[in-house]
Amino acid sequence: MKRHLFTIGLIASFVLSAFAHYSGLFSATVQFAISCLSIIFVAGFLGKATESVAHYAGQRLGGFLNATFGNAAELIIAIFLVKDGLFDIVKASITGSIIGNLLLVLGLSLFVGGLKYKEQHFNVKLASHNGSLMLLAVIALLIPAAFAKSLTTSETMNLSILVAVILIIAYLLWLLFSMVTHKNELSDEAIEHGEPQWSKGMSILFLFLATVMVAVQSEWLVSTLEVFSHQFGLSELFVGAFLIAIVGNAAEHSAAILLARKNKIGAAVEIAVGSSLQIALFVAPVLVIISLIFGKTMDMVFTTFELVAIGVAAIIAKSISQDGSTNWYEGVLLLVVYIILGIAFYLV
Amino acid sequence: MKRHLFTIGLIASFVLSAFAHYSGLFSATVQFAISCLSIIFVAGFLGKATESVAHYAGQRLGGFLNATFGNAAELIIAIFLVKDGLFDIVKASITGSIIGNLLLVLGLSLFVGGLKYKEQHFNVKLASHNGSLMLLAVIALLIPAAFAKSLTTSETMNLSILVAVILIIAYLLWLLFSMVTHKNELSDEAIEHGEPQWSKGMSILFLFLATVMVAVQSEWLVSTLEVFSHQFGLSELFVGAFLIAIVGNAAEHSAAILLARKNKIGAAVEIAVGSSLQIALFVAPVLVIISLIFGKTMDMVFTTFELVAIGVAAIIAKSISQDGSTNWYEGVLLLVVYIILGIAFYLV
Amino acid sequence: MKRHLFTIGLIASFVLSAFAHYSGLFSATVQFAISCLSIIFVAGFLGKATESVAHYAGQRLGGFLNATFGNAAELIIAIFLVKDGLFDIVKASITGSIIGNLLLVLGLSLFVGGLKYKEQHFNVKLASHNGSLMLLAVIALLIPAAFAKSLTTSETMNLSILVAVILIIAYLLWLLFSMVTHKNELSDEAIEHGEPQWSKGMSILFLFLATVMVAVQSEWLVSTLEVFSHQFGLSELFVGAFLIAIVGNAAEHSAAILLARKNKIGAAVEIAVGSSLQIALFVAPVLVIISLIFGKTMDMVFTTFELVAIGVAAIIAKSISQDGSTNWYEGVLLLVVYIILGIAFYLV
Repeated sequence: MKRHLFTIGLIASFVLSAFAHYSGLFSATVQFAISCLSIIFVAGFLGKATESVAHYAGQRLGGFLNATFGNAAELIIAIFLVKDGLFDIVKASITGSIIGNLLLVLGLSLFVGGLKYKEQHFNVKLASHNGSLMLLAVIALLIPAAFAKSLTTSETMNLSILVAVILIIAYLLWLLFSMVTHKNELSDEAIEHGEPQWSKGMSILFLFLATVMVAVQSEWLVSTLEVFSHQFGLSELFVGAFLIAIVGNAAEHSAAILLARKNKIGAAVEIAVGSSLQIALFVAPVLVIISLIFGKTMDMVFTTFELVAIGVAAIIAKSISQDGSTNWYEGVLLLVVYIILGIAFYLV
Repeated sequence: MKRHLFTIGLIASFVLSAFAHYSGLFSATVQFAISCLSIIFVAGFLGKATESVAHYAGQRLGGFLNATFGNAAELIIAIFLVKDGLFDIVKASITGSIIGNLLLVLGLSLFVGGLKYKEQHFNVKLASHNGSLMLLAVIALLIPAAFAKSLTTSETMNLSILVAVILIIAYLLWLLFSMVTHKNELSDEAIEHGEPQWSKGMSILFLFLATVMVAVQSEWLVSTLEVFSHQFGLSELFVGAFLIAIVGNAAEHSAAILLARKNKIGAAVEIAVGSSLQIALFVAPVLVIISLIFGKTMDMVFTTFELVAIGVAAIIAKSISQDGSTNWYEGVLLLVVYIILGIAFYLV
Repeated sequence: MKRHLFTIGLIASFVLSAFAHYSGLFSATVQFAISCLSIIFVAGFLGKATESVAHYAGQRLGGFLNATFGNAAELIIAIFLVKDGLFDIVKASITGSIIGNLLLVLGLSLFVGGLKYKEQHFNVKLASHNGSLMLLAVIALLIPAAFAKSLTTSETMNLSILVAVILIIAYLLWLLFSMVTHKNELSDEAIEHGEPQWSKGMSILFLFLATVMVAVQSEWLVSTLEVFSHQFGLSELFVGAFLIAIVGNAAEHSAAILLARKNKIGAAVEIAVGSSLQIALFVAPVLVIISLIFGKTMDMVFTTFELVAIGVAAIIAKSISQDGSTNWYEGVLLLVVYIILGIAFYLV
């Protein structure tokens, strides 16, 4: 009964939102409200699908699939921005996506999970590797920025392209390491589950479908946000790094928080941290390579504000997650840093 | 017998110091010598009182009370400075207090305790949380400084006030977390003590009395220090960040070292680290809020030198304390960083 | 039989290389090829000698001796450079030696060892102390650079000399701590070895002889490298920090990798990390003191590029080694950072 109501709400709100978007009959405010309602439903659908896949595939692979589908949407949006040469917005949204996952998604997951469970645990070896990979991401963004002042434009481009290629190789080797050669060392202990709602094939199909719906719905919401932000006089940097990132990561948010509430904190961490690592070590470098095809190269030189934001996010997330044990106050710490960064980006 | 001699010395030196301060009959050098003698006695008294309270209340709460009483004195002095608009001296003394506790007090405690015991242990979960909170303190000071250059004065003020409010909330939630919801997880193992000297009520009364005496005596000593520093041509930054901080933290010094010698390293760490966290996450933000009342807002933008000092102190203290095990060489490492910072601040 | 062939190859290639160097009859390219062949043999000889000494003296002392002998050669070369006032090249080669050991030697050891063994372990307490000492090294280099802009030249010199003296004291106390007072706490578990090739006295003699041969051979190779680098238009910074450092650390490379392959990862880490700590905390400060004797003081102010390189190397190496467990991917991470730094230094 409850399940049927959910299905009806999901389809109805999605169709209504599509109509509002394409007809243009409603005001921006009404469009925004409908989109928000719909995103709650599709995000809930995605969360269920992820959980079901995690049941069959294990927490880590389930989390990885969720992060990847979530980022696929962002990658597609970013490619269009790169094509138009809007490199500053691309970098702002990469920054926002990294800190949004590390601070907001992870912070909310730990907080919400910690309110229910006194302490939650995940694989400590994975936590340690995640921390080192976050440092690599920060280093890979810091070095081009630190050296760019003494380099010519073409030297900066060469440095960016080479760093991009190296990061892609490092990320692929990480997948080889974590999914193949050291799969068992990094997995969480098996947790007893009840029977899942759907079959294995159905779960994967629904995961795919839900991700597409979230991606499409996110884009509709983003388009109403742009109207909003102009009305309220918000800067491009703030909109790109916070508003778009929050909405664009709706998939990660809903799934991670749902999993944390079910004490599957390992999968929640994999979604939040895994997603930000994928953005930094794979999506960003791939965008640099893709920009080559469009004939106008995007460099990897981020602004000082962006570097500070990514750096502090990585360091506090590493510090909090490195013991493989989490609680509600660690969630608070992450959220506090996110709010402080949000205020600073809003004012600047 | 020995106890009576101590009581006589305590009262006699304190009265003599008061007379010297208010009569103005003695030269600055003599006043300084009397103050130093008196501070040794009152600091010893405070150490005994803290230890006695720690016996009844546990190492952590005892340490917390000691840190709080110690910082109450500093807060009062700082409020007068804020009222007079001497913001640079306030920030220098905040910096000095943070690094003095993290490097000098903690360093001496580990060193002195480590000479007696090969290895000393304290709660590793607490160490981990302390480390994350130290990072939050550094981040909260770094972000206003990093963004201030691109902000107007009023935007910087708004950022400072908002960050201050957020830090106070985060600190209060930390007390809720560490004293209420996760009290047992963060406590040290019970250690067998002998019978304490005083009853529970007497211990708290003496802790309060001793703290007031230390605060008053510190102020008298600081006033002679100012005459001294002018004679020797020391910079305001050096006097504020090192001389005043060392004397003003006499309470923390004496208590922490005494506890380390008695193998109660958990309480010593709580005093040193807890005190610096309280300064960074509570005292400094409260001063910003209080400055609003006086009509002239103090921002949270620290100088590069101050940020470097706080940053390196937090990072080395975090690195050393994170395994919950300490030894004499870790004390040396902290003291070495303190000395290097002292030389740099003296020369600059 | 195999052993005799090795001895013949060792002596023949060394003599040929000496002849090529002093006669000047061959072209730079031929000299370079002969030197490379010879360095493979002498490095192999050194590896065997280190391993044999490690058998008698334990992994840590064996590693320490190897690192010290290896650095003695570099110290001697650097003294000649200091005498000639070539301070920039000295600092570049110090930088190169630190990051070469932390990233290249350690990275290759973990990678090569990790291909053979799924996980390798070394003393986790030692890892923790190594990490803290690396931070001290970074802090000691950061502070003079951060304060230098506000200091006069003579004040910078005073700061440099005082920091140098403090670091030397800290390093000597570290030896006291790690070799005397806490020797057992920091040692690796005994590993069963087969019978070593040589007696105890013979092993030490060969270790000494092999180190001298590597040092001499390195210098010959460096002299051909200089010709090379001019031909290919490489910058002094790149040659000093990368080419010379790689060749000059041949001793550490060969020994560490050989030990990692034999699952003696504790000795490999001691060589790589111990060597870089010795460079930062002992060799560099000693060079500052020695420069005083020559009448022209070398300061401790490193360039931003050098600080970034040393800082990121220390942070990633600390992050990777702190759990006392290593695998092939951790080697990849270190090598990736080394390659990125190499490209940046090459372009700048």
